Amino acid sequence: MTDKKEINAGILIIGNEVLSGRTKDVNTSTLATWLSSLGIKVNEVRVIPDIEKTIIDTVNELRKKYTYIFTTGGIGPTHDDITAESISKAFGIEYNFHKEAFKILESYYKPGEFNEGRQKMAKMPVTSNLILNPTSGAPGFYVENVFCLPGVPSILKSMIGGLENILVGGDPILSSTINLRTVESEIAKSLTEVQNNNIDVDIGSYPFFKAGKLGVSIVLRSTDQNKIDKCNSEILKFVSEKKIEIVERD
Amino acid sequence: MTDKKEINAGILIIGNEVLSGRTKDVNTSTLATWLSSLGIKVNEVRVIPDIEKTIIDTVNELRKKYTYIFTTGGIGPTHDDITAESISKAFGIEYNFHKEAFKILESYYKPGEFNEGRQKMAKMPVTSNLILNPTSGAPGFYVENVFCLPGVPSILKSMIGGLENILVGGDPILSSTINLRTVESEIAKSLTEVQNNNIDVDIGSYPFFKAGKLGVSIVLRSTDQNKIDKCNSEILKFVSEKKIEIVERD
Repeated sequence: MTDKKEINAGILIIGNEVLSGRTKDVNTSTLATWLSSLGIKVNEVRVIPDIEKTIIDTVNELRKKYTYIFTTGGIGPTHDDITAESISKAFGIEYNFHKEAFKILESYYKPGEFNEGRQKMAKMPVTSNLILNPTSGAPGFYVENVFCLPGVPSILKSMIGGLENILVGGDPILSSTINLRTVESEIAKSLTEVQNNNIDVDIGSYPFFKAGKLGVSIVLRSTDQNKIDKCNSEILKFVSEKKIEIVERD
Repeated sequence: MTDKKEINAGILIIGNEVLSGRTKDVNTSTLATWLSSLGIKVNEVRVIPDIEKTIIDTVNELRKKYTYIFTTGGIGPTHDDITAESISKAFGIEYNFHKEAFKILESYYKPGEFNEGRQKMAKMPVTSNLILNPTSGAPGFYVENVFCLPGVPSILKSMIGGLENILVGGDPILSSTINLRTVESEIAKSLTEVQNNNIDVDIGSYPFFKAGKLGVSIVLRSTDQNKIDKCNSEILKFVSEKKIEIVERD
């Protein structure tokens, strides 16, 4: 919705545990919130199983489609961790010990503890760049525009900050929220008019149920604060006319 | 991993609020857990924005790929609710008032309250089948193998039970979990051997951090309890040999 070239991203959650329903994915929310702040818009998320061909095909499809791809999961030491090898194959790069990663892990563990399982975490596309891991040693990596992160949310969170000097973002995506004590159908028509008057602002309407009461969150998103402000005042105008209570604004 | 024809599903989460990071999707977990119990395996999840062309293209791609598709979100009364119209276009079916849905909503609301916004929720592919909504009146719908549900988690949960007589599942996917007080790298090699001996069982290994202690959950999934049991005993064998503490089993 902007005139400038959009900087965007796709997120690829790799893991049977999310597809089975056992694990609720929270990495999408972490990555998307962080990327928005850098002016990078997430256009798509996919969750796929630990199947090599699926990973290769999906990575090769998405990396051509978006500025950046972020994968989560599958870079640990066990048999079901096949992301690093799959990414190697997607790019046609040798999968083997990464010298720098090997050194990091060797010095991270006590002598004698750097066993076969742990050594596997140093295997990745040999020419990839590392993403350092301040929490648990084992680094992530990136090849061209594909950034591979672990699935454990706390470790992922600790690693993404290190990428902020590497990613080139756009204008930060600004947002504004108005929570109203109403139901969507009461404001649908007015909101449509505001959206038609402000096509550069992404207006979302989300019903909520909090502390026993129904309400609607209206979320405005744009890279231009003036456009958000204009939109906001048009919404406040109909809210006032309809005598709708404003619960909260931020 | 089974010899029989797999009954599978794709989930399509439609909504800018998930892509922006504002909302954490919980519907995937609800749907996947429920589908597993019906013997339907979720093979892919996609999160896409409220853009008509993207919805149409994705639905048309996925509905050919999987036995069932479940969409969530975008069937409310506001301007950003475009799922019903997009699905109509994907199937080439007229988008207009659905007679039965209109009647349900008309009788759900008090006289005079069935306004334009609420009437929009009766618009959908005119020949679709309804998915009844015991929580808030407005029904979902399905066309062929594509089932369209709302995005509000509590409403979605209340609606899916009604589909159990319509969906044809496979053998229920059984699972068994062993939580161990260890780290993945200690068991990686043994677990690989067990997986190689039991290729019909899907063995997942997931590190956890609970009450200040590290551990690993090993999750076995198969439609055959005997195969899970065999796999389980091989795991318990190496766990005992390595003197690893078992924290929990279910």
